[in-house]
Amino acid sequence: MNALERARACAARMFEKDAASQAMGIKIEIPAAGRATASMRVRDDMVNGFDICHGGLVFALADTAFAFACNAYDNLTVAGGGDIEFLRPARRGDRLFAEAREVHRGRRRGNYAVSVYNQDRQLIALFNGRSVSRDESMLDNG
Amino acid sequence: MNALERARACAARMFEKDAASQAMGIKIEIPAAGRATASMRVRDDMVNGFDICHGGLVFALADTAFAFACNAYDNLTVAGGGDIEFLRPARRGDRLFAEAREVHRGRRRGNYAVSVYNQDRQLIALFNGRSVSRDESMLDNG
Amino acid sequence: MNALERARACAARMFEKDAASQAMGIKIEIPAAGRATASMRVRDDMVNGFDICHGGLVFALADTAFAFACNAYDNLTVAGGGDIEFLRPARRGDRLFAEAREVHRGRRRGNYAVSVYNQDRQLIALFNGRSVSRDESMLDNG
Amino acid sequence: MNALERARACAARMFEKDAASQAMGIKIEIPAAGRATASMRVRDDMVNGFDICHGGLVFALADTAFAFACNAYDNLTVAGGGDIEFLRPARRGDRLFAEAREVHRGRRRGNYAVSVYNQDRQLIALFNGRSVSRDESMLDNG
Repeated sequence: MNALERARACAARMFEKDAASQAMGIKIEIPAAGRATASMRVRDDMVNGFDICHGGLVFALADTAFAFACNAYDNLTVAGGGDIEFLRPARRGDRLFAEAREVHRGRRRGNYAVSVYNQDRQLIALFNGRSVSRDESMLDNG
Repeated sequence: MNALERARACAARMFEKDAASQAMGIKIEIPAAGRATASMRVRDDMVNGFDICHGGLVFALADTAFAFACNAYDNLTVAGGGDIEFLRPARRGDRLFAEAREVHRGRRRGNYAVSVYNQDRQLIALFNGRSVSRDESMLDNG
Repeated sequence: MNALERARACAARMFEKDAASQAMGIKIEIPAAGRATASMRVRDDMVNGFDICHGGLVFALADTAFAFACNAYDNLTVAGGGDIEFLRPARRGDRLFAEAREVHRGRRRGNYAVSVYNQDRQLIALFNGRSVSRDESMLDNG
Repeated sequence: MNALERARACAARMFEKDAASQAMGIKIEIPAAGRATASMRVRDDMVNGFDICHGGLVFALADTAFAFACNAYDNLTVAGGGDIEFLRPARRGDRLFAEAREVHRGRRRGNYAVSVYNQDRQLIALFNGRSVSRDESMLDNG
């Protein structure tokens, strides 16, 4: 397997068990190892009391892209934390795209930047995630 | 109305339209103006590919507590951003409690600290939210 | 040594070699293990182009309080990162007090909240620090 | 004046009064509007009790690059806050380079990413700054 094939194998393995991302209707694409795009439509059950997409779900989309980007290396990696900045509301019916890219990857800690856009390519949110790796294979553990 | 009654009136008004928080099964309590507790059970459709609660949903719970804490003053307030630190995984079936408290409130910007616990009072996550107010009444706008 | 004595011994050991904190004129007090107060006067060479204290030096003060709070246990601990929110400018001649307290301490990672006040007890900045411990004694290494 | 000339005029105006950055020995370059590089040598009076550059001074360097990047438009802009991640210690004598670039600029709020490198182009720290503009000219005021 080359790097991209391995990244995609990890993503497929993760996604098939990821009930939460599936329930949110999230779709994943892996354009390269260390990158991931997660997309989601803002459904009626995703808006808050101000009739805009619940910020927690915008975060969840960004966090999902981050999780798939940092798990490209068959080395089980979890989110240690992250910071989000909300720039513009997402509306009911909008299609959101969270694009994650690796900024730095050390032996155990990594940093990933995620930009969330709507269907008009307007920037909705910026997220920076901090990952922690566990030195454990994902593909070998069925 | 005193401060607590107003805070609860704002919370009731927000919650009745908050389809997203309702869909996540979140319950809100307002113990004081500037404070809020949001609780949620980790359902089967909330776990990720590692069989732990999706971090985005832990964030969504914390963010909800934050939103209800900062909207106590009948002055429409939205999240500008926030930072979360994941300390311990939440498991399927866990009941989570996000407790938000006001740390600082200026004329337009505010800061809120949220601790997320599980049913055994173990700390799951720490969240710090940044709010922005809009000088607009919530209760006068039906 | 009890916990407070050990915390103060660690602080004394750290401070005597801390040329940077000394050069900034920072003073340290350890009221309890896991807590620290760092204070500093805003000197003429600490203001920026807007004639207010350089934000980096406000951060440096908060970061110093954090470093002394998290090194209370004779277990060498460094800053992994942190987030600061600037709430109010500090002026030339102000005396600033950064008060750090432990929010959470796990086996290796810890979280500390720091509030920075001026001499009128106005809140200048809020800082949240993330620490990483190295399982290495400080007092045994002269 | 074109955009780059204006950015450089703002930077020159800011720097001449910036006693703090001058005292740290920081040098500024403006390669383009919305970008800035701040560089500094880690002096003997900049190391902490672990004999590495005080994290607060690494932050101060990054924050300086950020301040000069976001003040390119003759619209007085201050730091609202920021998050730093320390990746590798900087040593006594190292020459550090903080490179700031604009990620997003709205009407009042902006976001800037800063990478701090040492002389060997090793990544020392990542910083993300949040700016707030004040609708006030810098060049027209004295």
